[in-house]
Amino acid sequence: MGFAFDEKDFLACCGSARFAAEMARASPFPSLQAAVAAARDVWFDRVDVSGWLEAFAAHPQIGETKSAAPGKSEASAQWSKGEQSTALATATGSSLQELSDWNVRYKQKFGFIFIICASGRTSPEILAELKKRFSNRPIEEFQIAAEEQMKVTELRLAKLFSSKEHMASTGDQ
Amino acid sequence: MGFAFDEKDFLACCGSARFAAEMARASPFPSLQAAVAAARDVWFDRVDVSGWLEAFAAHPQIGETKSAAPGKSEASAQWSKGEQSTALATATGSSLQELSDWNVRYKQKFGFIFIICASGRTSPEILAELKKRFSNRPIEEFQIAAEEQMKVTELRLAKLFSSKEHMASTGDQ
Repeated sequence: MGFAFDEKDFLACCGSARFAAEMARASPFPSLQAAVAAARDVWFDRVDVSGWLEAFAAHPQIGETKSAAPGKSEASAQWSKGEQSTALATATGSSLQELSDWNVRYKQKFGFIFIICASGRTSPEILAELKKRFSNRPIEEFQIAAEEQMKVTELRLAKLFSSKEHMASTGDQ
Repeated sequence: MGFAFDEKDFLACCGSARFAAEMARASPFPSLQAAVAAARDVWFDRVDVSGWLEAFAAHPQIGETKSAAPGKSEASAQWSKGEQSTALATATGSSLQELSDWNVRYKQKFGFIFIICASGRTSPEILAELKKRFSNRPIEEFQIAAEEQMKVTELRLAKLFSSKEHMASTGDQ
């Protein structure tokens, strides 16, 4: 027994098709901890660099709520919105414009959008982090983005498990 | 004054369009050493990860002489053949088959072909290196491949400069 999810569930956690397929194959997991350990292994050891780029492309840009890959996952879009809620609550029109301008510069330099685990971070914090990371070499930034993607994935796996637990406890009543 | 080359010349050294454009913009170079220093800077600090993948895709697979990107560069195809001459001279039918099989496995795991500066290396050496590198994590292997690509680029820049020097000295007579 354990928590069973399908590819679509895992794709909402991390938009790499290979990640989702391997996680679905390894499912069910006895616990969230086991799922996180498997996810780290798949993401860092088995998903190739094109898969990393694919996952990055599935996110909306920071400061936007619409996904770059529309229609891909409703859960992913809703989670993005929740993760960015602090940032959006602390944003002004001019700071959103500045974030948008820096997003364009970032993408021109690195070829993918700025990935950050935005949960609990204010808009000025995110902008400061973007500016700091902008000076990195492309390969360094690629690895930092992959680490941030993993943080997002872990938060989303936790949400997935808690929704399942909630459904299970509701079913018991 | 110095050695002036165009984008096509640099693209034959390294198949990233951005690499070639930036090198052509920085040209002419006072010496080979200056060109190599500029090339390292452009490759490691300015070309993004998609540009690395683009350059890798411009190579023929080790053990083959036909480029993956046919018609892209005659100079590049000729240089590849020269760089693989030791490998081809030391290859047997069965070792070429084994190399071909491992190339397939490598590409399945990493998403790009096995990149190695083959110059002066025998076929068994290359096969041993491929097998050893196969166990790497995708991001480690991506960086090793980029280092190998840079070695190939340096050798090709040297050939480019010596062909120019040869033409210059012939012109003086």
